[in-house]
Amino acid sequence: MNRFNNSIAFDKVLYEADITGSIAYAKALKKIGIFTNEEYIRVVKALKEILNEFANGKFVIQPSDEDIHTAVERRLTEKVGDPGRKIHTGRSRNDQVATDLRLFLMWKVDELMKKIVDLQKAILRRAEKENNVVMPGYTHLQQAQPILWSHYLMSLFWMLQRDKERFQDCRLRSSVLPLGSGALAGNAFLIDRGALAKELNFAWVSENSIDAVSDRDFIIEFLSACAILMMHLSRYAEDLIIWSSVEFGFVELDEAYSTGSSMMPQKKNPDSLELIRGKTGRVIGNLMKLLTVMKGIPLTYSKDLQEDKEPLFDTIETVRASLEIFKGVVKTTKIHPDKMLAKMDDEMVFATDVADYLVKKGLLFRDAHKIVGRLVRWLTEKGKKFSELPLTTYKRFSTLFDDNVYRLFDLWHSVNLRSAEGGTAKASVVKQIREGKKLLRKQL
Amino acid sequence: MNRFNNSIAFDKVLYEADITGSIAYAKALKKIGIFTNEEYIRVVKALKEILNEFANGKFVIQPSDEDIHTAVERRLTEKVGDPGRKIHTGRSRNDQVATDLRLFLMWKVDELMKKIVDLQKAILRRAEKENNVVMPGYTHLQQAQPILWSHYLMSLFWMLQRDKERFQDCRLRSSVLPLGSGALAGNAFLIDRGALAKELNFAWVSENSIDAVSDRDFIIEFLSACAILMMHLSRYAEDLIIWSSVEFGFVELDEAYSTGSSMMPQKKNPDSLELIRGKTGRVIGNLMKLLTVMKGIPLTYSKDLQEDKEPLFDTIETVRASLEIFKGVVKTTKIHPDKMLAKMDDEMVFATDVADYLVKKGLLFRDAHKIVGRLVRWLTEKGKKFSELPLTTYKRFSTLFDDNVYRLFDLWHSVNLRSAEGGTAKASVVKQIREGKKLLRKQL
Amino acid sequence: MNRFNNSIAFDKVLYEADITGSIAYAKALKKIGIFTNEEYIRVVKALKEILNEFANGKFVIQPSDEDIHTAVERRLTEKVGDPGRKIHTGRSRNDQVATDLRLFLMWKVDELMKKIVDLQKAILRRAEKENNVVMPGYTHLQQAQPILWSHYLMSLFWMLQRDKERFQDCRLRSSVLPLGSGALAGNAFLIDRGALAKELNFAWVSENSIDAVSDRDFIIEFLSACAILMMHLSRYAEDLIIWSSVEFGFVELDEAYSTGSSMMPQKKNPDSLELIRGKTGRVIGNLMKLLTVMKGIPLTYSKDLQEDKEPLFDTIETVRASLEIFKGVVKTTKIHPDKMLAKMDDEMVFATDVADYLVKKGLLFRDAHKIVGRLVRWLTEKGKKFSELPLTTYKRFSTLFDDNVYRLFDLWHSVNLRSAEGGTAKASVVKQIREGKKLLRKQL
Amino acid sequence: MNRFNNSIAFDKVLYEADITGSIAYAKALKKIGIFTNEEYIRVVKALKEILNEFANGKFVIQPSDEDIHTAVERRLTEKVGDPGRKIHTGRSRNDQVATDLRLFLMWKVDELMKKIVDLQKAILRRAEKENNVVMPGYTHLQQAQPILWSHYLMSLFWMLQRDKERFQDCRLRSSVLPLGSGALAGNAFLIDRGALAKELNFAWVSENSIDAVSDRDFIIEFLSACAILMMHLSRYAEDLIIWSSVEFGFVELDEAYSTGSSMMPQKKNPDSLELIRGKTGRVIGNLMKLLTVMKGIPLTYSKDLQEDKEPLFDTIETVRASLEIFKGVVKTTKIHPDKMLAKMDDEMVFATDVADYLVKKGLLFRDAHKIVGRLVRWLTEKGKKFSELPLTTYKRFSTLFDDNVYRLFDLWHSVNLRSAEGGTAKASVVKQIREGKKLLRKQL
Repeated sequence: MNRFNNSIAFDKVLYEADITGSIAYAKALKKIGIFTNEEYIRVVKALKEILNEFANGKFVIQPSDEDIHTAVERRLTEKVGDPGRKIHTGRSRNDQVATDLRLFLMWKVDELMKKIVDLQKAILRRAEKENNVVMPGYTHLQQAQPILWSHYLMSLFWMLQRDKERFQDCRLRSSVLPLGSGALAGNAFLIDRGALAKELNFAWVSENSIDAVSDRDFIIEFLSACAILMMHLSRYAEDLIIWSSVEFGFVELDEAYSTGSSMMPQKKNPDSLELIRGKTGRVIGNLMKLLTVMKGIPLTYSKDLQEDKEPLFDTIETVRASLEIFKGVVKTTKIHPDKMLAKMDDEMVFATDVADYLVKKGLLFRDAHKIVGRLVRWLTEKGKKFSELPLTTYKRFSTLFDDNVYRLFDLWHSVNLRSAEGGTAKASVVKQIREGKKLLRKQL
Repeated sequence: MNRFNNSIAFDKVLYEADITGSIAYAKALKKIGIFTNEEYIRVVKALKEILNEFANGKFVIQPSDEDIHTAVERRLTEKVGDPGRKIHTGRSRNDQVATDLRLFLMWKVDELMKKIVDLQKAILRRAEKENNVVMPGYTHLQQAQPILWSHYLMSLFWMLQRDKERFQDCRLRSSVLPLGSGALAGNAFLIDRGALAKELNFAWVSENSIDAVSDRDFIIEFLSACAILMMHLSRYAEDLIIWSSVEFGFVELDEAYSTGSSMMPQKKNPDSLELIRGKTGRVIGNLMKLLTVMKGIPLTYSKDLQEDKEPLFDTIETVRASLEIFKGVVKTTKIHPDKMLAKMDDEMVFATDVADYLVKKGLLFRDAHKIVGRLVRWLTEKGKKFSELPLTTYKRFSTLFDDNVYRLFDLWHSVNLRSAEGGTAKASVVKQIREGKKLLRKQL
Repeated sequence: MNRFNNSIAFDKVLYEADITGSIAYAKALKKIGIFTNEEYIRVVKALKEILNEFANGKFVIQPSDEDIHTAVERRLTEKVGDPGRKIHTGRSRNDQVATDLRLFLMWKVDELMKKIVDLQKAILRRAEKENNVVMPGYTHLQQAQPILWSHYLMSLFWMLQRDKERFQDCRLRSSVLPLGSGALAGNAFLIDRGALAKELNFAWVSENSIDAVSDRDFIIEFLSACAILMMHLSRYAEDLIIWSSVEFGFVELDEAYSTGSSMMPQKKNPDSLELIRGKTGRVIGNLMKLLTVMKGIPLTYSKDLQEDKEPLFDTIETVRASLEIFKGVVKTTKIHPDKMLAKMDDEMVFATDVADYLVKKGLLFRDAHKIVGRLVRWLTEKGKKFSELPLTTYKRFSTLFDDNVYRLFDLWHSVNLRSAEGGTAKASVVKQIREGKKLLRKQL
Repeated sequence: MNRFNNSIAFDKVLYEADITGSIAYAKALKKIGIFTNEEYIRVVKALKEILNEFANGKFVIQPSDEDIHTAVERRLTEKVGDPGRKIHTGRSRNDQVATDLRLFLMWKVDELMKKIVDLQKAILRRAEKENNVVMPGYTHLQQAQPILWSHYLMSLFWMLQRDKERFQDCRLRSSVLPLGSGALAGNAFLIDRGALAKELNFAWVSENSIDAVSDRDFIIEFLSACAILMMHLSRYAEDLIIWSSVEFGFVELDEAYSTGSSMMPQKKNPDSLELIRGKTGRVIGNLMKLLTVMKGIPLTYSKDLQEDKEPLFDTIETVRASLEIFKGVVKTTKIHPDKMLAKMDDEMVFATDVADYLVKKGLLFRDAHKIVGRLVRWLTEKGKKFSELPLTTYKRFSTLFDDNVYRLFDLWHSVNLRSAEGGTAKASVVKQIREGKKLLRKQL
């Protein structure tokens, strides 16, 4: 039962948050006369020593240490005696753990935001450097229209930008101090919660003690933001896995991010990307865990809530690693622009341009679409390409065709046609990169 | 296959968003010369008529109508002829459907926000009116400390406040216009996307066309916010279900929100609350659906995305109904303050106060906790209550006990001890209610 | 509230199960003297008429009809008067709905099993007909070793075989009669449950009335089996979507199972497969819904259980349609064996065979693997193929190489090397097909 | 990247399965001449030593050990030299890991089945011993009808019986040997797979090598069975948590299975049960993880599959511990039959019996239900009980009431009325216990 009940095995990662919280709480206790000044100084000194013990791997967990909170208090009492037995005055594990988790989460969100920015920088750098590569754009995994490789890269930049926004929102909503809510009904020692919040860098003090100890929204919201972020990475991983097949051949992972086969000597498998894709399922499952747990309990605190920690810790670590790995992939993956071009050799990616051409000549869009549909089928049957057709043949499909139709069959021409804001035209991508840089500069 | 493929059966609810989008797009097409002014006027008029046909249930869906977009265009062409065949110029279903969904979601979020405010108002009113009822507060479903019924009610107010914040954040991130992104590569007709955004009340224009047609973050974020909101309601439903048991007897649902049994004539079942609790699973499942779908696809648009709609529509309707039902429950549920008091008759809810009393007399918290623990066990064995013990007996447990200990055994005294911000003391609840009112006034 | 509470809108699909159950229950009531023989005959006649009314779409639902059970009883009483008011004697909606759901599920499982068999037959037929096509086999989406197209097809056959087993197990566990369990405590009218079970083709009678009305395992187990089945289809869909890209070009979907683009005239999108892939998320979400609902309630019946129905009905319909669509895809998809061959033109798929060759010549496996690894890198750098190397070069990598090494570079040779049971050698596939046919013959 | 990629940190628990598989594979390699007899003996001896090293915690993992498979092979080669470099001949990590996982799962299922039986035995013992306790039965958490405590207990017995069946089915479907399937295309060394299966106690040999390395159905099916099992425990935990509230007071957890509060000296919290309830969410999340991972990949092996292990291992450990804890709870929880009786003091649980009484007197069920409904409302208003009413008053509600109505108001009478198979009548529960014992005897 002890093994089942105790959480020290995993909640010890909260040590810094727990000790930081206790240091602030000691100050608050001094203010209301529970600690003398001298006691307070000794307690803070001892707590900082314990922090160091943890940081240096020197803290020895005892079998009686149920969780990080009892472990720290036990050690504190070993060190300072009686004052250690006062640190929990007016506090409950319920408001304590909620405070620890929020502090911890805010710190970790800050770390993850930096990792996202690092990945965004890698994207910006690469997009800027490789802003002259045309590749096929896909919908339904079918070639659609030519796009810039840099435009593709930048799409991830903007997704990550939203991920950061969600993290920021979640961080803000985490910045509400529960400490001073007691077990559920509030603190009976006239503790100064506003000062506590200031001390611990919380933006607000919780408005209702019952809500304060019951609430784990901030973790669910974080897990949800992480699930979306991982889903983003998974989709790009999926693209890159497909593109690194021999059949596509667009990209080639660096050795550091691929592995060989135990049986087949020729294999070079995109394991890093497959792991990211797989770990997305892991994070989604973690979100499912906590939602199901929270949905199944009444207010306020029930021990079920202990199940909030492992999904959270596991998710943070998974997201952190995935962001780093993906950054490495972005930095090191080789591209093969020649193969990208070669795959568009049948010129089908120009079909929309041909239809638009007719529209610009005055045809109704639906008619233009239909005529080009017919033309495409004809080309396919004959095994011909757009650029090979004589104008006379074009004329048979529509008299609106003209000599200048041949100008369409140039990939750069096609790319630069999409010049509306956010399109793949080079000018638009240059603008995106500039915007992106500006955003990053503003934020950090 | 058609039945499998077509989405008109459920996406027809998007009609207003789709038509609104098309009206704006028509204006943009006029600006770039695709529509003459006269054509534009006819098109807009026809679209408004179609809007009315839908609103009045007069629109007749044809077997050829794959989805709401083709249905509207088909009808438009029936009405105006050739100009109808131009409305899709430069547009793709990919940017169109993303635009429709965002518009629709923003509108629906506004509606749901109002429903939340209604529920919050019901809470405020009730908390204000019933601000003199003391009840046991629970952790682990065990009696912990006395709380105010109004404090309990207000805890939901603050949860809902966070739910609104999440909705607002999500709405803001939905307010990014994808229209003008084409199939994936952008718009080739120099369409004025900024004007389009203004016309449709979008705050921003999407920065990258690939992201614009691929992205469904806004739906996932919304579903996640809804899952959290429903989880909140589920937890309160759980409390109220337990409290409406004969054994607790704290609350009594109105007939309108409970139902009888087909077999047992005496039953009055809290069906409304059980449904809300059950439907929370439904919304969590909807979130899982979309996360799994999105995680399984590469960029950009794949038909898998069609599975985004039903979970969204179903969730909106479920949340809307649940908020209304819960408001009804808050408004009509009878409470039994006498039973709440009676259940605290064993006075165990004062144990914390007794320990705190000793602390205030100078005992170390851990020692006070231990002494009161012993005292409680002794009382239990003897079948006695705190208030029945003579001072001499108290003294046997600690000499710090004094005549004034008997002042503790008053529920209002206990409640008002928790006077730190957010505590259950009456003054704190009054402040919460005042704050709550101010917040609602500011927002609407 | 009524709209929130009532389930008739969706549970009407249970009409046949409900009426069948009532017919059997009427017989049981006759046996214990509640119905006279004459009453029994009238009741049964009327119930059969109501069945017809439902079947012919003539049944008119009244606003007072809460669910299918009250609707049927209301109509019965309209038809026969007083005896209708007796049909519910000793019965509760709790045991009634559990009985209906089990009956319904058993019938639907039978239907789905037939659909699986149909798909298996389509696979067998195609594998038999196209048993001479060699294609690259993939791990990590990288070419690994040559396989037979028919071997690939047959892998789905065996997955589906397991799906049927799971359905059968689930059906068996559904075949336990809850009727006669009352609300939760049992039936007080000495009803003959054994006879009821016989009448309704249940294999067993439930052993415990509390369990009988609480249990929804059979639905969860079914949803789980469906989630696995859909996951199977999704994985094949993923393969086929990738293979129908221009870059692979291995398969070409029939027009009936693909659709065009609203913007790009050349597109032919594998919508059918993408929908199946997407709908897998839908079914997984349905499973999550019910698990979360069930996890959140105590015993026995709570209204939360009403949420068991829509996920069930939706899943049945989704799986049914997906199986049919996939069968159509298997039957109609064109393959391009020439492209499959062409993509193996670099001969890298022979690498394992070369290593195995060295092992058979006496080299240690790990050394052989390493040598071929070096050889492969050398070939890649030089842009050469295995078959182009002179023996002297081979000798430089290992003196064990011999003239007969060239025999390896034949795809059929490679395929037929894998002759251990279950391998891709033609003889093995022929055996699989034979076994498959035998299995299907046995079962139907 | 190494830390991201390597699985040795968690897959080392597979050591016994991996080594057992390798011992069998060594024998098969001897048979086809890869190993001499002498080499085979040395290899087996060394593998057994490695097994011991793991078992005794003496195995030292090296930084180069990617996973359990490479670790074992590395150590084997250290011990025996060249023959170690042959053990992987014809084998791939793909068929190896699938074999390991299946072996491991079968063993673990056997262990868990024993744990279930232990829990079932505890239930049987307690139900037999406490077969004379009447308590209120609930639907919607409202008192419905009196039931036997033993009947309630036995309901869990039957749920667990189904759980075992599901485990057995899953074990059977796990008993299919993938070894000899190579990377995906089969084994090219004429390995005798039938003999391998026999050696490793597999019932079957996989029929298709592609399926063999792709398939993880057996894990999903196991996780699903575990999710259902945990859901069962969670529902009983929920009941017991509610029943251990002061307000119900039906049960009292042993000290070993409850814990105190850090703040409130009087608290005795049902932590053990809350943890089980919480951990149900954990297992559901684990199922979600794997379903999402599998759904997102094509055939055959992708590295995403590495994410199958942690959810599996974590689930096994969680279920094992939960079963043990729950057995302890069943064994040690004190019940308070007096409180169970006291809570039925208002006699409302007899309402169904009164209605049934009227039915047996000849009234139509619906009319009887209505009359008793009226009677119940009248009693409630007057604050009276059934047994207190004079016959004259009864007659005012229905002339069918008779002197013998007072016999109804006896809990045992009520309980024993439900005598149909599976009902709560004592005879039925005795029969259930007898059946239960027989089943367990048969199985072990």
